[in-house]
Amino acid sequence: MMGNNELGFTTSEFEARTARIQKVMHEKRLDAVFLTTEPNIRYFTGFYTQFWESPTRPWFLVIPLEGKPIAVIPGIGASGMQATWIEDIHTWSSPNPEDDGITLVSGVINSLPSCFGRIGATLGLQSYLRMPTTDYLKLADMLKGKEFIDIAKDIHQLRSIKSTAEVEKIRRACAITNHGFDMIPAHAKAGQTEREICTQMRINMLSKGAEFVKYLISGSGPDGYDSIIMGPTSRIIEKGDVLIIDVGAVYDGYFSDFDRNFAFGHCSDETKRAYDCVYEATDAGFKVARPGATTTDLYKAMWKVMEAGGALGNEVGRLGHGLGIQLTEWPSNTATDNTVLEPGMVITLEPGMTYAPGKDMVHEENIVITEDGAEWLTRRASEHITIID
Amino acid sequence: MMGNNELGFTTSEFEARTARIQKVMHEKRLDAVFLTTEPNIRYFTGFYTQFWESPTRPWFLVIPLEGKPIAVIPGIGASGMQATWIEDIHTWSSPNPEDDGITLVSGVINSLPSCFGRIGATLGLQSYLRMPTTDYLKLADMLKGKEFIDIAKDIHQLRSIKSTAEVEKIRRACAITNHGFDMIPAHAKAGQTEREICTQMRINMLSKGAEFVKYLISGSGPDGYDSIIMGPTSRIIEKGDVLIIDVGAVYDGYFSDFDRNFAFGHCSDETKRAYDCVYEATDAGFKVARPGATTTDLYKAMWKVMEAGGALGNEVGRLGHGLGIQLTEWPSNTATDNTVLEPGMVITLEPGMTYAPGKDMVHEENIVITEDGAEWLTRRASEHITIID
Repeated sequence: MMGNNELGFTTSEFEARTARIQKVMHEKRLDAVFLTTEPNIRYFTGFYTQFWESPTRPWFLVIPLEGKPIAVIPGIGASGMQATWIEDIHTWSSPNPEDDGITLVSGVINSLPSCFGRIGATLGLQSYLRMPTTDYLKLADMLKGKEFIDIAKDIHQLRSIKSTAEVEKIRRACAITNHGFDMIPAHAKAGQTEREICTQMRINMLSKGAEFVKYLISGSGPDGYDSIIMGPTSRIIEKGDVLIIDVGAVYDGYFSDFDRNFAFGHCSDETKRAYDCVYEATDAGFKVARPGATTTDLYKAMWKVMEAGGALGNEVGRLGHGLGIQLTEWPSNTATDNTVLEPGMVITLEPGMTYAPGKDMVHEENIVITEDGAEWLTRRASEHITIID
Repeated sequence: MMGNNELGFTTSEFEARTARIQKVMHEKRLDAVFLTTEPNIRYFTGFYTQFWESPTRPWFLVIPLEGKPIAVIPGIGASGMQATWIEDIHTWSSPNPEDDGITLVSGVINSLPSCFGRIGATLGLQSYLRMPTTDYLKLADMLKGKEFIDIAKDIHQLRSIKSTAEVEKIRRACAITNHGFDMIPAHAKAGQTEREICTQMRINMLSKGAEFVKYLISGSGPDGYDSIIMGPTSRIIEKGDVLIIDVGAVYDGYFSDFDRNFAFGHCSDETKRAYDCVYEATDAGFKVARPGATTTDLYKAMWKVMEAGGALGNEVGRLGHGLGIQLTEWPSNTATDNTVLEPGMVITLEPGMTYAPGKDMVHEENIVITEDGAEWLTRRASEHITIID
């Protein structure tokens, strides 16, 4: 994060994020916010490490009503946290099954001024605590005159509005992903397995500057596919197959998330029409994307086109979602979500439909809501399905 | 998982795993086990997808006292779960903020015979629930005459004993990682950044058959490094630097986890001695590794060597850990862990020490406990620090 202007964020970015949550804390009458997950702790501190892959140790961040966040973390993370803008860092020797930071973090929370007696935590909506449930309940008991309050939705809302610097990282992740897709017709051939094609794409994106490729799935079958969350498998692609690849590549901690469809040699008119239909649905979604419109407006605009195009259903459960530090973030484009779009929101448009029994067609692009509309972060897919000879 | 003998597991493997947990359930008087995380659900079902990268939707598995596990999952996962050995699959359209599977899964649990009134869940030791805490508390209230009981340690113990098929996947992940390290002297040069060296290593492992490289960090500095969980950064390696790279590569869902140290051009005698010391400590740990010995025996054998070698401390908090579906698994090699080693346990030996202010030296190898001792899964590091000219 140090020594390279392109990577990480300036301290003012973290100050702004902290000011935003502290404003929410005043409104919601919270003495502190208690965070446990990688995305939330990174968001407020800049602490960025792959070490979260180890599930053994809990990590805590306490944000007071005023001043910088306070880190309460395993000793192994001390030097990494010291390199961020955070100054108040408490550590313990972890793993310690007897008391893995609970006494330490309860002491930190109890030492803060008690104005409201309420501590915000991500207890609800599409959130979880990355700590043992028994330790959470113990911690709740150890708080003196304070109780935990769910602020999951507030954190989602806060993170959903991206800064210019965040949008630029997502744009870069999208460009790298576009590059990976662009190369596919040059290296993918019938006779290869899904896995071979996807590994080459993964390498191409890493060579182009992807930090990680955390999500790269594929589905394929004769003239269509029926799953978009499994694979890549060792299934051999044959002439007449349709292949979908869906990618979440990461640049400096921010995700892309979009897919592309390829037909090998040929495909049916029905499949071509399904592709054109979801392409058109994407256009329809983009047209209504602007501040003041809602995620449900996006859903309705896209679904209307697919319904007219003969959609039998949608098994994904939504037609797109927020995007940023995580592959999928709040909100969701559904019939009932009704989240109002605001400038800075990064959203995927992901129209998908079952167009014949056992055949799905899913399309996806990434956009950012601007002051007066929306902007593509992805370079659009081809208007008709790409056929690889 | 289908159509390739090398990938996935046979149905008998899942039957054996289920029989083992059901034996525990009888002993602990549990009517069912309730699971929510990727590793645990995969372990009992074989359901293997990168889709867990999306944190939005919860997934549930209910294991009854008799019969196959029951999946309660978002509709988007139906076709993937149908391809496993699981037959009883309940789905709902997710995301649904009003009721994200809670009514459905409570119905499944309540429909099971109630012998003991107890449902096991991973509530404690080094575990968490991958679902909203408010939903967990709601679910606990909806159970009729049943309560949740913590079985985190039982699940850790069960998974710590690997089958032959699991060990072979870890061995393969280790071989791929060894290959990646072997190539480093050929491509790494002073003047490159940590990131450039690590990206090339990542690509080399993917080309050699790694499914993912989920963990690849580095630390470097003049004659030593002080962090082993951050990076790779854009720091430029110079002559006289020491570089550590620590890798968790994945083969068919199973991790390697070991590191290697490299000096560029030259390094001090003190650093050479520190390397030799942790190498010797690894030998000492290996020598005591056998069924009946404990993780604390491993710790003591390794720490004794490092103490004699002038160790100032250890900031990692342990000298190795379990390894398998996760980069780090229970148990830990610490002064107080005292877990008895059993055949089939895969363990990392990870002696590390601070040998001078701001300078750490960490070594790591992976072993499996056998009937009468232990076996290396990694090809050992060089006896003295590798110097790259």
